[in-house]
Amino acid sequence: MNLGVCYYPEHWPEADWADDARRMRALGLDLVRIGEFAWSKIEPAPGVYTWSWLDRAIEVLHAEGLGIILCTPTATPPKWLVDLHPEILPWDKHGNPKRFGSRRHYCFSSPAYRRESARITEALARRYGDHPAVVMWQTDNEYGHHGTHESYSPDAARAFRRWLQRRYESIDSLNTAWGTAFWSQDYRSFDEVDPPNATVTESNPSQHLDYQRFSSDEICEFNREQVDILRRYSPGRRIAHNYIGDFTKLDHHAIGASLDIAAWDSYPIGLLSEGDASEADKAHWLHHGHPDFAAFNHDVFRQCSAQWGVMEQQPGPVNWATHNAAPAPGMVRLWTWEAFAHGAEFVSYFRWRQAPFAQEQMHAGLLLPDRQETAVLKEVALVSSERDTIGTPETTLARVAIVLDYPSLWQQEIQPQGRSGSALKLARALYSGCRKLGLDVDIIPQGADMSAYALIILPSVSILDAEMCGRLRDSGASVLAMPLTGSRTCDGHIPENLSPGPYANLLPMQVRVFESLPPYVKIGVNLDGQAFSGSLWRESVTSIAQALAVFENGEPAWLRNERMHYLACWPDEPFLLHVLRRICREEDLEVRDTGRDLRLRRAGNIQFAFNYGSDAIDLACVGAPEKGADYLIGARVMQGAGVAAWRIQLVLPDKME
Amino acid sequence: MNLGVCYYPEHWPEADWADDARRMRALGLDLVRIGEFAWSKIEPAPGVYTWSWLDRAIEVLHAEGLGIILCTPTATPPKWLVDLHPEILPWDKHGNPKRFGSRRHYCFSSPAYRRESARITEALARRYGDHPAVVMWQTDNEYGHHGTHESYSPDAARAFRRWLQRRYESIDSLNTAWGTAFWSQDYRSFDEVDPPNATVTESNPSQHLDYQRFSSDEICEFNREQVDILRRYSPGRRIAHNYIGDFTKLDHHAIGASLDIAAWDSYPIGLLSEGDASEADKAHWLHHGHPDFAAFNHDVFRQCSAQWGVMEQQPGPVNWATHNAAPAPGMVRLWTWEAFAHGAEFVSYFRWRQAPFAQEQMHAGLLLPDRQETAVLKEVALVSSERDTIGTPETTLARVAIVLDYPSLWQQEIQPQGRSGSALKLARALYSGCRKLGLDVDIIPQGADMSAYALIILPSVSILDAEMCGRLRDSGASVLAMPLTGSRTCDGHIPENLSPGPYANLLPMQVRVFESLPPYVKIGVNLDGQAFSGSLWRESVTSIAQALAVFENGEPAWLRNERMHYLACWPDEPFLLHVLRRICREEDLEVRDTGRDLRLRRAGNIQFAFNYGSDAIDLACVGAPEKGADYLIGARVMQGAGVAAWRIQLVLPDKME
Amino acid sequence: MNLGVCYYPEHWPEADWADDARRMRALGLDLVRIGEFAWSKIEPAPGVYTWSWLDRAIEVLHAEGLGIILCTPTATPPKWLVDLHPEILPWDKHGNPKRFGSRRHYCFSSPAYRRESARITEALARRYGDHPAVVMWQTDNEYGHHGTHESYSPDAARAFRRWLQRRYESIDSLNTAWGTAFWSQDYRSFDEVDPPNATVTESNPSQHLDYQRFSSDEICEFNREQVDILRRYSPGRRIAHNYIGDFTKLDHHAIGASLDIAAWDSYPIGLLSEGDASEADKAHWLHHGHPDFAAFNHDVFRQCSAQWGVMEQQPGPVNWATHNAAPAPGMVRLWTWEAFAHGAEFVSYFRWRQAPFAQEQMHAGLLLPDRQETAVLKEVALVSSERDTIGTPETTLARVAIVLDYPSLWQQEIQPQGRSGSALKLARALYSGCRKLGLDVDIIPQGADMSAYALIILPSVSILDAEMCGRLRDSGASVLAMPLTGSRTCDGHIPENLSPGPYANLLPMQVRVFESLPPYVKIGVNLDGQAFSGSLWRESVTSIAQALAVFENGEPAWLRNERMHYLACWPDEPFLLHVLRRICREEDLEVRDTGRDLRLRRAGNIQFAFNYGSDAIDLACVGAPEKGADYLIGARVMQGAGVAAWRIQLVLPDKME
Repeated sequence: MNLGVCYYPEHWPEADWADDARRMRALGLDLVRIGEFAWSKIEPAPGVYTWSWLDRAIEVLHAEGLGIILCTPTATPPKWLVDLHPEILPWDKHGNPKRFGSRRHYCFSSPAYRRESARITEALARRYGDHPAVVMWQTDNEYGHHGTHESYSPDAARAFRRWLQRRYESIDSLNTAWGTAFWSQDYRSFDEVDPPNATVTESNPSQHLDYQRFSSDEICEFNREQVDILRRYSPGRRIAHNYIGDFTKLDHHAIGASLDIAAWDSYPIGLLSEGDASEADKAHWLHHGHPDFAAFNHDVFRQCSAQWGVMEQQPGPVNWATHNAAPAPGMVRLWTWEAFAHGAEFVSYFRWRQAPFAQEQMHAGLLLPDRQETAVLKEVALVSSERDTIGTPETTLARVAIVLDYPSLWQQEIQPQGRSGSALKLARALYSGCRKLGLDVDIIPQGADMSAYALIILPSVSILDAEMCGRLRDSGASVLAMPLTGSRTCDGHIPENLSPGPYANLLPMQVRVFESLPPYVKIGVNLDGQAFSGSLWRESVTSIAQALAVFENGEPAWLRNERMHYLACWPDEPFLLHVLRRICREEDLEVRDTGRDLRLRRAGNIQFAFNYGSDAIDLACVGAPEKGADYLIGARVMQGAGVAAWRIQLVLPDKME
Repeated sequence: MNLGVCYYPEHWPEADWADDARRMRALGLDLVRIGEFAWSKIEPAPGVYTWSWLDRAIEVLHAEGLGIILCTPTATPPKWLVDLHPEILPWDKHGNPKRFGSRRHYCFSSPAYRRESARITEALARRYGDHPAVVMWQTDNEYGHHGTHESYSPDAARAFRRWLQRRYESIDSLNTAWGTAFWSQDYRSFDEVDPPNATVTESNPSQHLDYQRFSSDEICEFNREQVDILRRYSPGRRIAHNYIGDFTKLDHHAIGASLDIAAWDSYPIGLLSEGDASEADKAHWLHHGHPDFAAFNHDVFRQCSAQWGVMEQQPGPVNWATHNAAPAPGMVRLWTWEAFAHGAEFVSYFRWRQAPFAQEQMHAGLLLPDRQETAVLKEVALVSSERDTIGTPETTLARVAIVLDYPSLWQQEIQPQGRSGSALKLARALYSGCRKLGLDVDIIPQGADMSAYALIILPSVSILDAEMCGRLRDSGASVLAMPLTGSRTCDGHIPENLSPGPYANLLPMQVRVFESLPPYVKIGVNLDGQAFSGSLWRESVTSIAQALAVFENGEPAWLRNERMHYLACWPDEPFLLHVLRRICREEDLEVRDTGRDLRLRRAGNIQFAFNYGSDAIDLACVGAPEKGADYLIGARVMQGAGVAAWRIQLVLPDKME
Repeated sequence: MNLGVCYYPEHWPEADWADDARRMRALGLDLVRIGEFAWSKIEPAPGVYTWSWLDRAIEVLHAEGLGIILCTPTATPPKWLVDLHPEILPWDKHGNPKRFGSRRHYCFSSPAYRRESARITEALARRYGDHPAVVMWQTDNEYGHHGTHESYSPDAARAFRRWLQRRYESIDSLNTAWGTAFWSQDYRSFDEVDPPNATVTESNPSQHLDYQRFSSDEICEFNREQVDILRRYSPGRRIAHNYIGDFTKLDHHAIGASLDIAAWDSYPIGLLSEGDASEADKAHWLHHGHPDFAAFNHDVFRQCSAQWGVMEQQPGPVNWATHNAAPAPGMVRLWTWEAFAHGAEFVSYFRWRQAPFAQEQMHAGLLLPDRQETAVLKEVALVSSERDTIGTPETTLARVAIVLDYPSLWQQEIQPQGRSGSALKLARALYSGCRKLGLDVDIIPQGADMSAYALIILPSVSILDAEMCGRLRDSGASVLAMPLTGSRTCDGHIPENLSPGPYANLLPMQVRVFESLPPYVKIGVNLDGQAFSGSLWRESVTSIAQALAVFENGEPAWLRNERMHYLACWPDEPFLLHVLRRICREEDLEVRDTGRDLRLRRAGNIQFAFNYGSDAIDLACVGAPEKGADYLIGARVMQGAGVAAWRIQLVLPDKME
């Protein structure tokens, strides 16, 4: 449980550095991230390096005992580099190069940029790789942000063709995999294949899916090239990347395999502003952030590498959302504890001092531009002292898992069959449902070990792995699958046995019709005489299995075969909670209704509670201790934005012993 | 009344073909459409033809007695052709070529593509033109779909200049016709003229109108080139094109003149999703389609060539709309009968078997991807058997006509003078109004014979033909003209005598002010003390004619001069129905209130009724027979999605005898 | 108080000209504007001038005693010129040249176009500069309209680099001013700098602000080049430009410095349709225009040059808005008097006769296309006769000023920190608030003389001038500053002393947090126990000054220090009116509640009243005279769209004596 901060010494007079370092340390911070975006300061002209300022900055921070997270500066190639190699620029879907003047202006497939990235990474690693202050590296910054996960440059087209050649070996295999018999799309050689952009109408979905895979793979390779260099010249240091939240255009698991730490940049109030909550919810949590949005990302990134952390934690209003509200007092502390309760190795605030110039000048820091303290500083100091009370919690073993599969998400974005739902949105709704029942959740890939879970949820995992289905059965867990699960093969085709593909081996059934509905239409569901509803998606299913609920036309809405379940529509929240409660009861999973604002999270034998609202909450409703002395943090009555923590007895279920 | 299906043998194992053909025949199908989009299978490399698979497919279908509709495959030029001749690609409005990877990626004005189109058409026609199974040809597929009715390529610019030279002969004539004195737009020669795209603000409307005419003419010429080849090598076969619905960017009458059959692709549920109905209507008819949307297109295409048909009939959820609901049980049968009741020569379902790959894999077929039957198959079989009961109905002679003029539609899209109304939207509202009164309607061009009608409606026919006005008067019919009728000359100018131009010869009047209003404002109308309302459009008119209704300021809202009527606003539905009822009463046209879901259609001496809702309807309300035995199809009480038909006595009015 | 009209002799048969001139004169018109857009008629081929038609047109108008406003035709370069010099075309943000076919298709930075503009201006000025009929010149037409205030052409990039070199002299100064240390944006030379378009994400805000300044300066220089030529060859004539309303992308003060008259084109109904009023307001004033929108522009342009006027006054429906309603009878007269009451030197109607062809054929004129009179002609004639009753009013000295600063507006559009508010929108809300209290308002730049005002309002003047703050204090006026005032330096940085920068010298305070809120959230304000509300923007302020109102969390919402005030949120109207009333009471400014539709405007010792509604208003509510004889125009009870005027005694406050 380390605390850190993001710092840009190149933005400030050198005279301020020592005092900044001293204040960081006094605040209780352990880590400081530097060097991000500093390329033009490190190498102001081709081959001309100016290390001295960075040498001194590192020494000053080191002198206060701060551990340094050093970044490769490759998210911002300098202007001279762009002028030397204009071909490094990424191209948009319309075939126009994007231009210098902001950040991330490079194409991952550019051989010239790959060389430059390796060169500057090696130069940095050689110089600072064995410096005792350097405890961690960050590669680049926020891969894929601003739509840079894909580029349609000539370099990208050439790399795509090579990628396809490796994947398919023969052009006939590609023609089969893409179904090019449709619309006269047959190719005679890989040289004929293009990226799927700027077509008259929608392009081939398998081609598009492959372009998405290729684009993610290119990022993966780009990252691994940096990692290989860093490992060579900076042995023993952990390597991280800072991902952006709510963004699944790249496969975090694939990239994370070569990293030590999957970090992400957590801006709860910005996420709410840009997210798909209702207007009422956006107003209600305007100053708190949605209680499940950041936690969802915590649970995503926790599974991607050996460790995880928050590389950038929002400390005040950001500058980039549609509207930028200020966090309510207490929320920065709450968000920090929610991250630690999820097992974060560190939480690092962005940024130390608000910059008075350039694009992010309205982005709050821990200090104001004139170095005055913000009110948030006290919250950070409080977290720092509370760490001592809590100690390092044990690892959490959640009993509920949601499977998130990147190719499935991509497949459904490419061919959504209806514009109002998405697999990611459904996964988030399921996650919220679980949190509202007080359940801890793991968000796992298909390849994960399934053996420890009591309930595994498949939120439209369209490209379902047959081998995983075997592990689902072997896990002994209840499984809840949602519409479109198993609806595609790896190539993006409808499976031979139709949807839900291999899941039909667990629950004998077949989807004959899938329909998508506009958001203003409800689907009636009858469950033991109780009326529920679904929306957006509905499937017409034939099955010999038991129907626990039916639609108004008598077709099954909820099917089960022993522990295997299937919902044939997108469930509205009351229906979803009903289903979850019933399965939890059967699995002996304790359910605690948290209501709108309260959220719970267990970390080892410590139970945390978080109040995402403005009103006080009495924790008696979730069986918290009576006596104040029993609380490590907080008390039974938790004020708005409050945090509480107490010890619990950890009873491991049979299967986990 | 033939039934058919669209089939893509190249998508399936050859081993399935014979069984497919057998099942088609057993279902009662007469026709099978093939070859569409098969270019890369027919000619996999330049000049290398592989006919054998198609030879065998035709034989297999022929062996079952199916008549074949063979398609020219020109909607999908293969990749090798695009690589050989990149200049065939269409260019978008911003001046960027669109790319290979979907369909319709060609520019009608490309000389290279004209040559290639003729070459492949001739090759196909030579090989199969006299095959006994081939009973019909389809040229290309869905001209103009996906915005391909226009292209801004250099080839298109050159062709436009030639087209202008032919139209105007001298550049002075063009300057006059376009009013280039305005904004310094004078041209010194045709070489100086460009297409009207990518201008700083709106381009010259007459230039734009000519570009629209030119674009439609290019399609016409492209089609005629194929037709000429087909007629030469395949004598005696009918030639069709399959248009898309609700799409008026090309002149179906001009293209249809060289065809035998005007077919269209009818997707009622997709049309509703993408159409301009209210949210309440979209929810109400989600599984039924709008009762008037498909019928409107039937009545459009019925007038375009000697015969008409439905080349593609929706059999289940489609894949391309914003939301894709499933048809209610019975609707596929209902839609088929609605088409036959309108005189369709054939209805062909799209497609035989759902493809498990590529862009349309979520588009339903009659069979599931694994060849299982869908529930719709029974509806098709039922229609097939009901055909025997009905026999071939006589041709219908509607007594009401709506004039739809393509240049007028284009003129108003180019210069709408208000963003909330359009001539096409108004025509559709008028059509719905007539259908709600149980009236059969013809939708006719200005050049049509007007003599048989009792009521002729002009829904903003802005470019009104003086000669047609003569025929309107001579017809003896009541005529109802709407705002903007006659508001433009052929060149797109305001007429010398102002709006309504030549209509003022029939009803002496002059429009002095036209105003467009936002949709949230109503215009009060006083009609004999009754309050009605209009919206969107209002005209300030001076006239010596009788005002049957007035606006709140006393200006005329409804003018008449003998049988000639004029409405000076866009009437809301109650006002419209009131006007229609009164004119019908005067013309002795029987009016039957159908309500929201019921629709009627007479075919010769057979009266059809269709229930577009979910609730039962008692046909007593429209004077249907009491006794079940009197019904050819259905019964007096018609369930949701039901069809009924009974014989009526055909009383021809005096003027039609 | 002259009346004029816009006339295009080149659009009409020469035979009509004399009669047109006669009718203009009979109507009471004094001025006629011609020559705008006539380039291709004046110079139909390169270097070939055809002056004769224009010679004759001028003679015909002169013969009737009409004064001519002659225009340079540079807003519409002919096709031959574009073909000769394609580099004159403006480029859009995506880097594509816009094309010929409408108007304003030139880049202000094109050296070729600068030469051509000077050439045609000189040719025109040499020929007609000393003609006795020519009393005024208009340069070009509507600078910046249709997004042409900026261009991203190669010529523009080169000119931008030169502009930067002049501004910064050294590249280090630029790097400091732009904060290029951020995101590795350092430049080594001016040659490396590009315009800020087509970047991956937002570009550097200081660079963007400079591009905006540069773009405005280019227009300024372009205009001055024409002005210099006109002054040389046409001495003694006044020179005007006709700006568009509600458009602040160019600095009218900077351009206006070289002009004699700042004219603007006033289309109140179009402004309302396109403006940011609520739907309810748009419906209410559909036929009247918003009571404050045109007046706001009057007060803007009144300060830009020595004189001001309305070059184009809407006479009926326009053609370019989303919906185009007709003015209610009387409104054209009302708008004309509102302009004169604001001190307009002239009001000129657009246009004399509606053109039956080309882009604006649906734009009403004083005559119909067939030369019939419209109903508006009587209103013009009435104004003309009423002028004699009124005489020329003395100059008005408003006691309230709103400061409008163009760089501040640009800065906030570039970096809005929230999408629902803008400084311009706030300025307009403040202006409306003052008008609703019957106050006359000056809209002034920062450099203006402040000494005459009792109340000076700063609506988010973000780039606040320290020198101006001194004059604010010295003025002795009450000052009311709004959020974001003083929040930026000239370079667009946060000031060293934080927001409100130099205003803190007047009112000791510091803004620590700025937050932007979605429009559906309200901010509670407590003012002496009364509940008010704000929205959109809220600041967290520390200050030793008195808090007159506080937010729910106790932080100050309204601060004052003697006569200096500060609101820490965007006030909803009741809160704003309360604040204004209180300050007016302290300053002894008379306040009269006008309600929704009534507006007042004093011109010298004449008080005007305008009824922007449909219902009658009794002027007793604002202390108007009882007796009809006391009215110069109108009477105490004013009908819808009515105008009244009466003499008042002018009491100058102490400070103005």
